[in-house]
Amino acid sequence: MVYDTAIIGAGPAGVSAALNLKILGKSFIWFGSRELSAKVGKAELVRNYPGLPNGTGAQLREAYLRHLDAMGIQITEQMVNSVSRMRRGFAVMADNDFYEAKTLILTTGAANTKTLPGESELLGRGVSYCATCDGELYRGRRIAIVLGSRRFEHEADYLSGLSGSAVLFAGYKDCGADLTNVTMLGVTPAAILGEERVTGVRTASGDMIPVDGVFILRESVALSTLFPGLETENGHIAVDRAMATNLPGVFAAGDCTGRPYQYAKAVGEGNVAAHSVVEYLADK
Amino acid sequence: MVYDTAIIGAGPAGVSAALNLKILGKSFIWFGSRELSAKVGKAELVRNYPGLPNGTGAQLREAYLRHLDAMGIQITEQMVNSVSRMRRGFAVMADNDFYEAKTLILTTGAANTKTLPGESELLGRGVSYCATCDGELYRGRRIAIVLGSRRFEHEADYLSGLSGSAVLFAGYKDCGADLTNVTMLGVTPAAILGEERVTGVRTASGDMIPVDGVFILRESVALSTLFPGLETENGHIAVDRAMATNLPGVFAAGDCTGRPYQYAKAVGEGNVAAHSVVEYLADK
Repeated sequence: MVYDTAIIGAGPAGVSAALNLKILGKSFIWFGSRELSAKVGKAELVRNYPGLPNGTGAQLREAYLRHLDAMGIQITEQMVNSVSRMRRGFAVMADNDFYEAKTLILTTGAANTKTLPGESELLGRGVSYCATCDGELYRGRRIAIVLGSRRFEHEADYLSGLSGSAVLFAGYKDCGADLTNVTMLGVTPAAILGEERVTGVRTASGDMIPVDGVFILRESVALSTLFPGLETENGHIAVDRAMATNLPGVFAAGDCTGRPYQYAKAVGEGNVAAHSVVEYLADK
Repeated sequence: MVYDTAIIGAGPAGVSAALNLKILGKSFIWFGSRELSAKVGKAELVRNYPGLPNGTGAQLREAYLRHLDAMGIQITEQMVNSVSRMRRGFAVMADNDFYEAKTLILTTGAANTKTLPGESELLGRGVSYCATCDGELYRGRRIAIVLGSRRFEHEADYLSGLSGSAVLFAGYKDCGADLTNVTMLGVTPAAILGEERVTGVRTASGDMIPVDGVFILRESVALSTLFPGLETENGHIAVDRAMATNLPGVFAAGDCTGRPYQYAKAVGEGNVAAHSVVEYLADK
């Protein structure tokens, strides 16, 4: 099936876009997590979300989830690894599934992932974002695992189990991955090395570690990698008042479009983006 | 006192701006009504305000009012009659009170009032928006009263009582103003007549009625009258992504900035406008 739109990201902007698309009768696939966003859950006190005074971020998240559940809206708990333009829309690879959508709404949050030196250049040539897609290719071989979030620890365990030897970088404290089979080398590699293909990683202390592949497991892929032509301004996606980006059919909403980083702004922009998608599809 | 900002209009965009200004520690005066907006109260079912599923407009209004009350935010129930730029900000006349503010946030809603032919030209020369300000000038004289809303019926009664003779136009059904002293002439005059000063009004059926003054009592003054230089696009206030209009220090949010006419968009834009005001004041 070709969806009318794919929403990438499940913070407040994604929630708002999804509610509106559902009401407006559009088909969509929505990539994210029922955690909604780490930031939403962590907010201590939200005083300025009109109509819901003095809630914690966790309460606001619960309210959003109840709303989504009441409307029967599902979140697809997959990470988008790649997006490519097709004749009539976009092909989206998420984990190892393939989806098609006529339009996209990016609600990926403020933390636009920074790529590692060498990451974009060697993507698909030793660099992978997907353990289940590409893990088998590295059975018995040497790999580096760059772990950005606790959520992917089971994938790290899976990869270290099938690899010949693995080194691990974990970008957060108290990593719970199985450390018996891996060598822990710090928070993040300084660079991914290689010309034609990955040949190794360089650690922060300057050591060169030879590896055949690098698995980067984090919440999101850098927008610059997903959308090479996407226009940005000061590190945020450039949008107009209709939340359209410079790429036809690609809309964006929420913190990824810039400050202020606010729930109310995000839900407003998600709402507008959904309406713009409907208008865009009608014009086609 | 000179307020940091004056918010004109109390729909969802105004609510959101007010909450944020309060939290951000800015002083403000907020013109509107605790009815918030006629449109909010009338919405039958609001399904797409994230976190508050399936409420009626009236319930959403109650939620907003509880939020405002919890934060001790007051609405000044006055209508803005005129705005003028001063050396360091703006002078705002509302009913017969005078206020000063460094910046303005316009949240006046979608229904941008249309002016009557002759209204702008004869404003201050026989045309008045304020019964209590100017009524006394017309004691014993002939006036026309253009009544746009039930809310101003007591002002119409006051004016008809002190005038020598009054004709009334009421733009809604079942006018409850005291009709014993006035001649009812229809919904709205076709034109206000006069060169140097008001000399009469023309009715829809083409009759010329000589009057000395015309009181126009409606929910809002046309933006084109309040802000002659304000840039618009397709009947909406033109704003950038920071909700800045073309006039320095004047911001706008909500339905008055364009479609889609949505609560979520309005609260998002009100939030952004409040943040932009803070930034604007900091830059000064």
